[in-house]
Amino acid sequence: MLEKVDLSVRIEKKEYKAQTEVLAEKWQSLQLKIKDLKIPVLIVLEGWSASGKGTLISKLVNPLDPRYYNVYTINRAAEENAMRPHLYPFFRSTPEKGRIAIFDKSWHRGLIPEHLEKRPLTKLEKASYYEDINDFEEQLANDGAVIAKFFLHMSKKEQKGRFAALSSNPVTAWRVDEGDKSQNKNYEKYLPFFEEMIERTNTGRAPWFVVEADDSGFAAVKIYKILTELMEERIAERAGRRLSGEARLPLGGESILKSFDAKKNITDENYKRRIAAAQAKMTELCYKLYAKRRSVVIAYEGWDAAGKGGNIKRLTQPMDPRAYEVVPVAAPSKEELDHHYLWRFWNKYPKDGHIAIFDRTWYGRVLVERVERYCADDEWRRAYKEINDMERQFYNHGTILFKFWLQIDKDEQLARFNARQGNPLKQYKITEEDWRNREKWDLYEQAIGDMLLMTDTEYAPWTVVESNSKKFARVKVVEHVISVLEKEL
Amino acid sequence: MLEKVDLSVRIEKKEYKAQTEVLAEKWQSLQLKIKDLKIPVLIVLEGWSASGKGTLISKLVNPLDPRYYNVYTINRAAEENAMRPHLYPFFRSTPEKGRIAIFDKSWHRGLIPEHLEKRPLTKLEKASYYEDINDFEEQLANDGAVIAKFFLHMSKKEQKGRFAALSSNPVTAWRVDEGDKSQNKNYEKYLPFFEEMIERTNTGRAPWFVVEADDSGFAAVKIYKILTELMEERIAERAGRRLSGEARLPLGGESILKSFDAKKNITDENYKRRIAAAQAKMTELCYKLYAKRRSVVIAYEGWDAAGKGGNIKRLTQPMDPRAYEVVPVAAPSKEELDHHYLWRFWNKYPKDGHIAIFDRTWYGRVLVERVERYCADDEWRRAYKEINDMERQFYNHGTILFKFWLQIDKDEQLARFNARQGNPLKQYKITEEDWRNREKWDLYEQAIGDMLLMTDTEYAPWTVVESNSKKFARVKVVEHVISVLEKEL
Repeated sequence: MLEKVDLSVRIEKKEYKAQTEVLAEKWQSLQLKIKDLKIPVLIVLEGWSASGKGTLISKLVNPLDPRYYNVYTINRAAEENAMRPHLYPFFRSTPEKGRIAIFDKSWHRGLIPEHLEKRPLTKLEKASYYEDINDFEEQLANDGAVIAKFFLHMSKKEQKGRFAALSSNPVTAWRVDEGDKSQNKNYEKYLPFFEEMIERTNTGRAPWFVVEADDSGFAAVKIYKILTELMEERIAERAGRRLSGEARLPLGGESILKSFDAKKNITDENYKRRIAAAQAKMTELCYKLYAKRRSVVIAYEGWDAAGKGGNIKRLTQPMDPRAYEVVPVAAPSKEELDHHYLWRFWNKYPKDGHIAIFDRTWYGRVLVERVERYCADDEWRRAYKEINDMERQFYNHGTILFKFWLQIDKDEQLARFNARQGNPLKQYKITEEDWRNREKWDLYEQAIGDMLLMTDTEYAPWTVVESNSKKFARVKVVEHVISVLEKEL
Repeated sequence: MLEKVDLSVRIEKKEYKAQTEVLAEKWQSLQLKIKDLKIPVLIVLEGWSASGKGTLISKLVNPLDPRYYNVYTINRAAEENAMRPHLYPFFRSTPEKGRIAIFDKSWHRGLIPEHLEKRPLTKLEKASYYEDINDFEEQLANDGAVIAKFFLHMSKKEQKGRFAALSSNPVTAWRVDEGDKSQNKNYEKYLPFFEEMIERTNTGRAPWFVVEADDSGFAAVKIYKILTELMEERIAERAGRRLSGEARLPLGGESILKSFDAKKNITDENYKRRIAAAQAKMTELCYKLYAKRRSVVIAYEGWDAAGKGGNIKRLTQPMDPRAYEVVPVAAPSKEELDHHYLWRFWNKYPKDGHIAIFDRTWYGRVLVERVERYCADDEWRRAYKEINDMERQFYNHGTILFKFWLQIDKDEQLARFNARQGNPLKQYKITEEDWRNREKWDLYEQAIGDMLLMTDTEYAPWTVVESNSKKFARVKVVEHVISVLEKEL
């Protein structure tokens, strides 16, 4: 969901100065600690052309002792004429223990559209490419390396402006080539390539961070913060400590939720007509599903009081009760805790021809478990890939997978909480825990954004459902399910 | 190299009784420790039909407290009619923390020839299958599970005998079906499938052990020993200790080297004629190599004094000195130690059209570093897959890869050591270290066998060169290189 990241964020000059001063000093002293602890560090900067990688690298190395870092720029031409396996130059450039290596572009390049334009990689070539990259990073991580990967994300407009500025200056005009222009022109086509690269190589020990780079000062501060936190985390780990405090280091999806307008609405009449039509169709499709022996998994996530229950009810009303199961997911039992966190979901996997509807899901790992620190940072960070891997298995089996996020805004939630509290029939639905969760709204917003950013895959996409109006939400879900099933069956 | 494992090993009844008594008791007490420490354990038994999995499982569970283990038998028919993703039944059966789950056949089944006969998996399907399996095992290992996988290896003759015995008894005749008979008939075709399964899923935290199962008593003792050692290792790890002593737990290749007759010979006249012919051809092939821009990597490994130097000399004599580089690999420098162990080999990777000859190689990780404990058990165990991954990259790039193991026997080595010591011109070639290594002959034999077992892949096969006669060895190497190059160019 790269396209939903808010790229309008800016930092004021004064604020930028004050922050970088402090962070640069911290960064400098961390370099020396890393050196003493002999931790090798790899920093990768990937992103759109003209997203400011060079400038950012200057800012990063400026405070450092130049004897203990290297910067590598990946030359596109050199790489295309590769006379050796594609990872060769990167393996050579891996840093000595205690040193920092900064990569201006990286081993992920081969996947990037510039290269694909000539001859697109086949599915098999791509799988093999991703496998190589993940093997490579895993080897280094197993050897003790810290790997931080930054994707500098920029808007089409900003990129266009930068190209224009560069081109109009005779000194810099050479820097804009045909490939760059094509990237800007085909911006929307490039997005899914970048997304796939991030989703498939985002591992627990070599995570991606998406950085809003329309404002280079904002990007610099963000990268500084992430790097210093990552280093502190690793240094603490070496000393056998774990950093306390709030769940840290969001991966870049903080703003995604804000891009959805929860207030979307529908008229009563419109609702009645459409829900009735959709439900009629649903009955028919369920029979087809059974006849064709396809299974369906529907995952519901959403804020407390977002209306999951009522939504599920409208969806299942027209279904044959023998064909579906609703699986309510509460806090894990002792038996469930004694297994891998995905175990209880595998247990409820529907047979071919059947439907399983999960009221809350495996995404709890990267939502409540992350925010409440029920699991270690390492555990939720690697969960994105674990979940993508699992959902790819569902997909490969032929299962049709839906993932709904029911989005309401903070005011709407408050109104619903108060309404529940005031209604004796609904009081049971509201607990102290709901109020406590609400206090952590911002942390949840980060976690939800990262979830949407990292697990919105081609084979298992998310649908965000604007749910301030329950009716709008119900129609959207039922109609979406129908339209996909019609295509698939 | 499954076909080279010595399956004639037997254990005497008395010895069997004495050993299993001790081991069973140990196993029993370890079960309780595992339970207290909440370590989940998965034990997988795979192998040929009628290799005695059932009997072995009885022996394994017999001493255990039945409240804390489960046995799962994978029903072929049930799996074939799978109504859910192929890992579903296995994820469900993963043990609770502190429990032991024993699998009679397992998630590796889908790769096994019975299933392939109907419609062979494509390369892409296979890659995706292996990826799923490795993801699955990695998830469990990350969650703290001990995973031990046993491949029960049996000779064609023994299998045939067992089928005949079963068939001739009316009570057991039903147990032999058409699939079993076909497996015995096509024994040689099944071997590479099993090998590939082992090589591609042999990870540091979910290792395979090959067990000689022609004698069920021998197999039982071996499995007991491996399991008890693995458990002790993990229990020590939990307590923050590392077990001392010799490199432990060979993976099953102990006997492989013994199957090669190092004494093969050649007449002087034959040698002169063939080496001259081969060398003439080599010059020509090197030009072709350059013209077609293919690169070649030649890896030499072998016992001390096996004659690597002289062999390399005969190979390179006819080559254009601009076309090749010989890379002598000694103990790593400080700079090399400060990098990943594969770094220094990547550094020497030949350009397209060129040849790199490594005099000792990356296999040092699983030979000297394993035997001398220069690296942790975890490190050499995961090295097989790391090396296979790296060599697959070489292959995918189009590099032609040779791996030679120069085999001499223990007497021949002694004779050569003594000759060196007696010759003032060659004394520099023999050191105290050589004598020390010689004392660890048996440990090296295990390590070499495991290396051949686990890294003899389709894309990077080993050639064992019988080298008691240096002349025989030289002709074999040069002629082998030529025959492969002729096919490739």
